[in-house]
Amino acid sequence: MRYGRRVTIEDGGRGTEPAREGLPPGGGEPRSMEPRRQGRPTGHDLERYAGLFAARTRVMKSSAMRDLMALTERPEVISLAGGLPDTSTFERASYAAIQQKVGSESLARALQYGPTEGLAPLKRCIVEVMAQEATHVDPDELLVTTGGQQAIDLVCKTLIDPGDVVVAEGPTYPGAVPTFSSYQADVVQIGLDEDGLRIDRLEETLDRLDREGRRPKFLYTVPTFQNPAGVTMSLPRRRRLVEVARERELLVVEDNPYGMLRYSGEALPTLRSMEGGDFVIYLGTFSKILSPGIRLGWVAAPGPVLEKLNLGKQATDLCSSAFTQIFVATLFEEPGAWLRYVDVVRETYRVRRDAMLEALDEHLGAVASWTVPEGGLFVWATLPDYLDTTDLLARALDRNVAFVPGRGAFLDGRGAQSMRLNFSGVGEADIREGVARIGAVVAEQVALYGSLTGAAPQRQAPAAGADEEEGGRVVHLPPRREPGSGHGAQGPAR
Amino acid sequence: MRYGRRVTIEDGGRGTEPAREGLPPGGGEPRSMEPRRQGRPTGHDLERYAGLFAARTRVMKSSAMRDLMALTERPEVISLAGGLPDTSTFERASYAAIQQKVGSESLARALQYGPTEGLAPLKRCIVEVMAQEATHVDPDELLVTTGGQQAIDLVCKTLIDPGDVVVAEGPTYPGAVPTFSSYQADVVQIGLDEDGLRIDRLEETLDRLDREGRRPKFLYTVPTFQNPAGVTMSLPRRRRLVEVARERELLVVEDNPYGMLRYSGEALPTLRSMEGGDFVIYLGTFSKILSPGIRLGWVAAPGPVLEKLNLGKQATDLCSSAFTQIFVATLFEEPGAWLRYVDVVRETYRVRRDAMLEALDEHLGAVASWTVPEGGLFVWATLPDYLDTTDLLARALDRNVAFVPGRGAFLDGRGAQSMRLNFSGVGEADIREGVARIGAVVAEQVALYGSLTGAAPQRQAPAAGADEEEGGRVVHLPPRREPGSGHGAQGPAR
Repeated sequence: MRYGRRVTIEDGGRGTEPAREGLPPGGGEPRSMEPRRQGRPTGHDLERYAGLFAARTRVMKSSAMRDLMALTERPEVISLAGGLPDTSTFERASYAAIQQKVGSESLARALQYGPTEGLAPLKRCIVEVMAQEATHVDPDELLVTTGGQQAIDLVCKTLIDPGDVVVAEGPTYPGAVPTFSSYQADVVQIGLDEDGLRIDRLEETLDRLDREGRRPKFLYTVPTFQNPAGVTMSLPRRRRLVEVARERELLVVEDNPYGMLRYSGEALPTLRSMEGGDFVIYLGTFSKILSPGIRLGWVAAPGPVLEKLNLGKQATDLCSSAFTQIFVATLFEEPGAWLRYVDVVRETYRVRRDAMLEALDEHLGAVASWTVPEGGLFVWATLPDYLDTTDLLARALDRNVAFVPGRGAFLDGRGAQSMRLNFSGVGEADIREGVARIGAVVAEQVALYGSLTGAAPQRQAPAAGADEEEGGRVVHLPPRREPGSGHGAQGPAR
Repeated sequence: MRYGRRVTIEDGGRGTEPAREGLPPGGGEPRSMEPRRQGRPTGHDLERYAGLFAARTRVMKSSAMRDLMALTERPEVISLAGGLPDTSTFERASYAAIQQKVGSESLARALQYGPTEGLAPLKRCIVEVMAQEATHVDPDELLVTTGGQQAIDLVCKTLIDPGDVVVAEGPTYPGAVPTFSSYQADVVQIGLDEDGLRIDRLEETLDRLDREGRRPKFLYTVPTFQNPAGVTMSLPRRRRLVEVARERELLVVEDNPYGMLRYSGEALPTLRSMEGGDFVIYLGTFSKILSPGIRLGWVAAPGPVLEKLNLGKQATDLCSSAFTQIFVATLFEEPGAWLRYVDVVRETYRVRRDAMLEALDEHLGAVASWTVPEGGLFVWATLPDYLDTTDLLARALDRNVAFVPGRGAFLDGRGAQSMRLNFSGVGEADIREGVARIGAVVAEQVALYGSLTGAAPQRQAPAAGADEEEGGRVVHLPPRREPGSGHGAQGPAR
């Protein structure tokens, strides 16, 4: 017997119909094969599909940042909203040299599928990056992800059932909010102050959850140059956190996208590198030290967790881009090249941070308070209680400036008086102009409030207990004192 | 007031501790800051985390293909297991020219974040690709995804609650199996024959589900050059399927990664392009026509569905790689360049398909049956009932050849007598040698069976009703008769 023999089979009478003549089954007119033009969704369409959507879609929401991206694409808008690195700092000559090498040495591999866990040469780069922050990792403990965002998503996929408790900072990374929501997590947010996460409040909350019989699946934290607050967890708090985690068997998800972007102050150890950091799942990314366009991040996790993350990734996107993994690996082949690039962006952003802090002082000093970050990409500014930054954004966009309203960093509507300001994405002049425009909008609203109530403009002073994590109160983060900066109007120490 | 002023706040007595002196809170010895070396997971570790994993992880499993990738990385193994295109066919000179252009014209953009829905220039490429299959799409109906796999994942994320019914072909794409599992879908698989999905069986199943009060969320189908079966849905069945979908308001997910890779026979319209194809969600990818390493696929969907897919993607990975999107868009700038490349791979794979079919005839003709694909990457071969391809794989690996056991294409353990054979990833000589090795392993087992039972080796003849989709019976796909191929041993028509 051979292939190619037609086997007659029972198939309900339709299998023997002519397959190529263009006749519909059961006779009738041949249908048009013209390309079909689909219309825009209508109310009827929405109704049609509503019954099919999964329950998670009812709580899924758009990230505040993503929504703003469309609005801020207009060239006349100065966007302090994004978390965009300045990718124009990457040298064309360097790019050309790397791609020349990729093309001649590893093209077929770059264009091919790779293993789910990531290519071995890229894992070696990650080991090198983490070593720069004195954090040892074995390549076998790594999973390469499609950006840091996928790392968060996979952790949620692995650990969260609907209704499970996740503990996070309040405010937390606005991009994690839709992820937590999409897994229907119950997110409990703990206040921050100038020394980062309030561990005392964390312990109180863990006690309460314990009494309620609810074990949090993990704590999500950005300990260094927090997004969006800009604050950094102090060393004593890091130690206490690791202790608490061990005592309570609490998984800690340490998200560290900005650790290498320090502009002042002294480096602190990562949670994962600390004695007792067994319960730390570490998330890293190349987005801020190299490029977000390459979509490469990673997770370093204990073996049993890593295995589940890998299964989750297989189902999600098979593997991350070999094309971009090879690009990074080739860049790393030149000793020190990546570190020189980090130096370039660090110096660029340091100057921009200083420009932003000076501009805030000039244009919002009378009414707002804000954090003074030692690194990273963001300042968190807080306005008087009677202002709402979500309302303010519409007015700001009228003046061609954008920021992320504070509510985007909470899951419960808090943050209404605050805003996240980014200083990495635009140049010094635009930062100054952008802050001036925000200052003008705020001044207008403050004056309006004053004329309505007779109250004099007053700077928002963070008060004791103002960072209550319960009860819907707004979180106020006080400004951080920079060593040596004194009380004057001079820029922060470097 | 100025930033930089230290504000004293109540923080449970720990906020005023020295933050830089390296002392743990509450006194005691400073802890070691030595890099910590994590060990391999132990039984204790597993126990420690087991209670934390989400319910979905209990049903999540590894894709058959992914598991094999590690085994088949040994250079001495001829892998007919993967679904890998031959990326060595991409010209270095072409790559260098494209990257030269990217470097000088759009580097900062390539390295940057992009919009979640995808970059406009890439969407225009997708419109062009779909037009080649006479399928009109508006750029606003598109979401760019991180490979076709993410498209499947996002569709599931948007539509599936645990326990929801998904209807799929049996066998179905092995890479979709872990995705369906991770969303805890109840997958009902409908048999195929040489004309593709058995629409009559589909209707029977839909009737049954309707009686049970269960509305399937969608039908997942690869109508053209099906993975893994290699068969193509006939035109009458396409028409009837679109009709059934409209009558029953059944969403159809049409996954079409291989449509442009046709080696013989005439092109058929995509389901989406057909009159009444409103209920079709179309999935495409650049993986097989250009490169899987770039991780770029897409979804074309009705507006309300697209909006939810976009939210799901935001939470999952923010956006797909701008780096690879710009690469593709730049390649497409040269008119016809991408089509010339498709011609190259099409011709390459056509020759390899023919080699595989000839080798099957030579080495397995006495005992096996298989499908004769008119395009795509796979042949589906079925052995006698007394053999199990999962067991056979271990023996095959001993002889340095690999395939995907048929069970990987089912969620219920069926497929034990079948195997998926890929002919795109390795050259003609390796295909012939690989099939010869499989033939030798099979012959050994057949002889063993014969000596134990006294039975003569017999070719597996697919029988009427053998493709029952219920009851755990194995699906046998009969060989497809090629027009003009007659009954002889000559190769298939082109």
